Amino acid sequence: MRHLGAEVTKLGPGECEIKVPYRNEMTQQHGYFHAGVTAAIADSACGYAAYGLMPATSSVLTVEYKINLVAPAAGETLIARARVLRSGKTLKICAADVFAVKDGRETLCATTLSTIMVMQDRSDMAAKS
Amino acid sequence: MRHLGAEVTKLGPGECEIKVPYRNEMTQQHGYFHAGVTAAIADSACGYAAYGLMPATSSVLTVEYKINLVAPAAGETLIARARVLRSGKTLKICAADVFAVKDGRETLCATTLSTIMVMQDRSDMAAKS
Amino acid sequence: MRHLGAEVTKLGPGECEIKVPYRNEMTQQHGYFHAGVTAAIADSACGYAAYGLMPATSSVLTVEYKINLVAPAAGETLIARARVLRSGKTLKICAADVFAVKDGRETLCATTLSTIMVMQDRSDMAAKS
Amino acid sequence: MRHLGAEVTKLGPGECEIKVPYRNEMTQQHGYFHAGVTAAIADSACGYAAYGLMPATSSVLTVEYKINLVAPAAGETLIARARVLRSGKTLKICAADVFAVKDGRETLCATTLSTIMVMQDRSDMAAKS
Repeated sequence: MRHLGAEVTKLGPGECEIKVPYRNEMTQQHGYFHAGVTAAIADSACGYAAYGLMPATSSVLTVEYKINLVAPAAGETLIARARVLRSGKTLKICAADVFAVKDGRETLCATTLSTIMVMQDRSDMAAKS
Repeated sequence: MRHLGAEVTKLGPGECEIKVPYRNEMTQQHGYFHAGVTAAIADSACGYAAYGLMPATSSVLTVEYKINLVAPAAGETLIARARVLRSGKTLKICAADVFAVKDGRETLCATTLSTIMVMQDRSDMAAKS
Repeated sequence: MRHLGAEVTKLGPGECEIKVPYRNEMTQQHGYFHAGVTAAIADSACGYAAYGLMPATSSVLTVEYKINLVAPAAGETLIARARVLRSGKTLKICAADVFAVKDGRETLCATTLSTIMVMQDRSDMAAKS
Repeated sequence: MRHLGAEVTKLGPGECEIKVPYRNEMTQQHGYFHAGVTAAIADSACGYAAYGLMPATSSVLTVEYKINLVAPAAGETLIARARVLRSGKTLKICAADVFAVKDGRETLCATTLSTIMVMQDRSDMAAKS
């Protein structure tokens, strides 16, 4: 995530927001954020949201996610907002929406639904990002 | 994809293989390929596989995909192999498997199922990669 | 849906609510609603939500959906609430939550994310249900 | 599954085949198998395939699945063939294809990708079906 210039802008138990500023190398030729960047920050935001509901000695592992890319990610900033829908002992089910911000207006460009696994007794959240 | 050092190593109507050599900036701290790279080459391989079944004036758009990350992507090379499962006029349904190659041995590290849309009369496949 | 005793309890452009009362033949041996019922009413609710945003001569076709089953569906009633997240000309992207109602209290038991296709010039919504 | 007239026709560690004969109450008005039946037998086949790789005292729980409905399920019989792609201790990742058989010819009508959880020390596989 550091490589992308991403920043965690909100963080609480079961929720997380991540912002990425526009940079040329993250875009397709049309000037949109690449779908890979969109998926990566949604996944990371879900990981952090889930991590906030776990024992500190745990780590997170993304088992799977589904993403619908609903609009081109055109703008100066990309924002992913994730929330935990269901917090089980072993699995956290999370959803994230990704918005492109252009001239201060947010447009939904992707939505995800994911399954995150709690890995006990290993403390390497950094591995996620 | 060029940014990742990815190379299309096989291409036919309805199928595509993409390889990415290991590079430090694509990995997590444990030396694995990052999940974002895994997802990106699976998505691109599906896009190319679908593109081979379309009129030349069309372009591809990933509507959605689901990915299961089944094992750490540890190795010297990452290989995505995609195939079109169903080729409709408007939508192509594709699957891809991603393997990590270590000492010549392939291990499945992810599998995807995706929906790709045919965009008529626009010729910009490059936008996908 | 009639077979299940399902009833559309709210319907508007881009949204739909469906309720199913508990009946023995829809349940597993533990007295929960079967996952197949949960998935079916979520899918139907998405179809109706999408249908409300289409020309009357169109019909709907579910291209794909993903469902996370997050808790046992135990209760007297099952409620699916669907909304259209993105309404394109050809595709409608929809989400639905399914709740089990027990003693008047709702519990989230499943959440879905789906892609619905608009079929032009055929008027057979009934085929969906 | 008994309600549907479904029959397990092959079963081995990590694989399962289920067949359902055509019956009027399982179909839409056009004479196709309903998508709910297609999804239900794919899910059950995945559950049985996963169950064959678990300790006998375990039970299975479907965490989530994604299904792509690729063709109308028209025919005399519906066949689901499931296989375990990755068998972890806690999670089994499974895929299933569903075929409609008409005049002896099989047509792919759906494909699924799912995550199944191993529930330790409870022996109630019947709950799945």
